[in-house]
Amino acid sequence: MHKIATLIASGAIALTLAASASAQVKPEDQIKYRKAAYSFTSWNMGKIKASLDGTYDAAQVKAAANAIAAVAGSGLGALFGPGTEKAIGDQKTAVKPELFQKGAEVGKLAGDFATAAAALAKAAESGDAAQVKSAFGQIGQTCKACHDQFKSRN
Amino acid sequence: MHKIATLIASGAIALTLAASASAQVKPEDQIKYRKAAYSFTSWNMGKIKASLDGTYDAAQVKAAANAIAAVAGSGLGALFGPGTEKAIGDQKTAVKPELFQKGAEVGKLAGDFATAAAALAKAAESGDAAQVKSAFGQIGQTCKACHDQFKSRN
Repeated sequence: MHKIATLIASGAIALTLAASASAQVKPEDQIKYRKAAYSFTSWNMGKIKASLDGTYDAAQVKAAANAIAAVAGSGLGALFGPGTEKAIGDQKTAVKPELFQKGAEVGKLAGDFATAAAALAKAAESGDAAQVKSAFGQIGQTCKACHDQFKSRN
Repeated sequence: MHKIATLIASGAIALTLAASASAQVKPEDQIKYRKAAYSFTSWNMGKIKASLDGTYDAAQVKAAANAIAAVAGSGLGALFGPGTEKAIGDQKTAVKPELFQKGAEVGKLAGDFATAAAALAKAAESGDAAQVKSAFGQIGQTCKACHDQFKSRN
């Protein structure tokens, strides 16, 4: 796990990946893939929530937190390239166009998410439900912060 | 990374997770989430392929391989629960109904995928493009093996 955490902690990685990968993926596929990444994240968040609300399953929480950390470290910035500001082909998007004009702010929010994901994975590694609960609350705040600002309700 | 590899190598984890998580997720959401998991995997496979075909980007390959390994270790079996054999709600699926009748065979294929994902992550960690190329070929075979048998062209 610490390797992923290290990757994530070096905040610049998302931007580096964005530069090299966005050229290769069609805009409609970028939208498809980013929705997939967040949907997959949502499933893993749900598993952790279920564990915190019910019987704590340390192995499941660990796998789910690892998955979220790997998503956060996968260079999602590459999926917000030119031409992905609005629906294209058969891909709808709930992104607000402002996201593409506020690079510094988006970078900060993405960094907060990555930091919180790394902390969640570390907490999950400990097997301590109280630590996970706290880290889960923190990452939830980072999701909400970005959604409130850059996701329209559709 | 070795922690994820360890999780994955303990092949039983997918089945354990399946039992505890499938009850909590609606069938249409299971289909949505599994398609998201495979779509996100496809994006990460594409990044590795682009690196092997063009200029090798060790950091990107490492992040992508970690993401694939985390998906493979996330307990996808939980997303093939009862009621997900065919389209439901607004979710289509390309799964063949046979998948739900051939548990042992599916378990073997899922285990092959997880083993290959762990090997790919290990190869990516080494930074050696030749090792990654070989491991990438291997995991591609495990994808194809399952698609050939259990995915219809739709």
